Amino acid sequence: MEVVSEVMAHGGVQGVYRHPSGSCDCDMTFAVYVPEQSSAGPLPVLWYLSGLTCTHANVMEKGEYRRLAAELGLIVVCPDTSPRGDGIADEADNWQLGTGAGFYVDATQQPWSQNYRMYSYIVDELPGIIAAGFPADMERQAIFGHSMGGHGALTIALKNPDRFKSCSAFAPIVNPMTADWSMGALETYLGADRAAWRAHDACALIEDGARFSEFLVDQGDADGFLHDGLRPWLLEEACRKACIPLTLRMRAGYDHSYYFISSFMEDHLRWHADRLG
Amino acid sequence: MEVVSEVMAHGGVQGVYRHPSGSCDCDMTFAVYVPEQSSAGPLPVLWYLSGLTCTHANVMEKGEYRRLAAELGLIVVCPDTSPRGDGIADEADNWQLGTGAGFYVDATQQPWSQNYRMYSYIVDELPGIIAAGFPADMERQAIFGHSMGGHGALTIALKNPDRFKSCSAFAPIVNPMTADWSMGALETYLGADRAAWRAHDACALIEDGARFSEFLVDQGDADGFLHDGLRPWLLEEACRKACIPLTLRMRAGYDHSYYFISSFMEDHLRWHADRLG
Repeated sequence: MEVVSEVMAHGGVQGVYRHPSGSCDCDMTFAVYVPEQSSAGPLPVLWYLSGLTCTHANVMEKGEYRRLAAELGLIVVCPDTSPRGDGIADEADNWQLGTGAGFYVDATQQPWSQNYRMYSYIVDELPGIIAAGFPADMERQAIFGHSMGGHGALTIALKNPDRFKSCSAFAPIVNPMTADWSMGALETYLGADRAAWRAHDACALIEDGARFSEFLVDQGDADGFLHDGLRPWLLEEACRKACIPLTLRMRAGYDHSYYFISSFMEDHLRWHADRLG
Repeated sequence: MEVVSEVMAHGGVQGVYRHPSGSCDCDMTFAVYVPEQSSAGPLPVLWYLSGLTCTHANVMEKGEYRRLAAELGLIVVCPDTSPRGDGIADEADNWQLGTGAGFYVDATQQPWSQNYRMYSYIVDELPGIIAAGFPADMERQAIFGHSMGGHGALTIALKNPDRFKSCSAFAPIVNPMTADWSMGALETYLGADRAAWRAHDACALIEDGARFSEFLVDQGDADGFLHDGLRPWLLEEACRKACIPLTLRMRAGYDHSYYFISSFMEDHLRWHADRLG
């Protein structure tokens, strides 16, 4: 693991690191914030998964999580959203596929299956690196994310309910199988058989029996993607049928940007900290 | 004035605006955050001046000022750092001169004097636009900034002590006349006669009799520019001789970045709010 940068912020260290990834068969970059309380012992880990077009850097620069992470003693891990670089499959003109659009799945279709294995990267590979390289208490993990990363957080929590104490999302894609801007990516990565898509769709996972303790979702009602891409009412309906507690807060006037995310970042960090103990 | 964007954040509106500037003889862009308390009446105005290479956007995205501005009821205005665009004089290979490096002076030398009139822009033109277009109480203004913008805040406050209730800075250039990275710009904009530079140098202004009620300065001791460009001890000495109260806090381990600024943004906003009443 190579240190790209380490900078002091709010008493802790905001780092950026690069490592050769076996899952993605390329170098991957991620950000970790470690509060100063880590000098007294391992701290719980909060994973933040980012949305389409983002790298590790967007939330690191605009998410405003460090003040609360420092106050609450949370390590915050911010991975990239896809493999990227020379020789990695991509469609340069399509922001919903390829670079920046890994959708947190393991692709099964050529040429994507060579590198686009973000599910394995987030669930299997990167946790080992975090456990080995940072003062992390891996018995206390939580996960959240935004948009495509909200989809990632919900699906990864539903598939790994024993690992995560809590899960929340900002404006998540809750049913990517049926959303215009994500159907194409699922077909490209996973093939035409829609049965394979269900393992990476929060609503379908719940319909198929996956469970999680509870969810918190914030959604702006001025979000331009609300009706075509996000549709939190579908998650509300799935959770209602499955008796999964969901706190869905529609936020009047807020859009899909980091101005929205940063406005409610404190709420989410406090919510996770309460559940991480 | 054209609305470039207006987005809800922390209950208020983060806007970006563009207007034809008479001072700079080109279109200029600036950011304004207006908290929701403005619906109850005009709010005090806090000016943030940015550093070299920045636009209005850096602090807007990375400065983490909105939460506190919303809590305290402060309008925060973030101007650009220079004129910019086609036909504006620049030296593309020099980040310390031209675009992004206006140094908050009115240039007197050709070709710079045509557009590089940031002092008049910040002190005369933009306040009129803010007063006319936003719910601002112009009787309650304060100013702060970072690096070159800290220099701008200190010098503008010293030259306009009756306008501003308070002035603070993050890692300011306190004596640009003698700093390697700013001497060239002052000579280019103001000519070879160093007497003309003194009106835009905080330490020289104080030596020449300018006064301000008090200053707050935060400075990271791991700032790579500390010894060559910033040297807050020179301001400390000038303030001591002139009996100007200065709170200078050396921050162990912090660098020159927005990770440093955002770590202490809350302190500065509370400090200004106390003095704005």
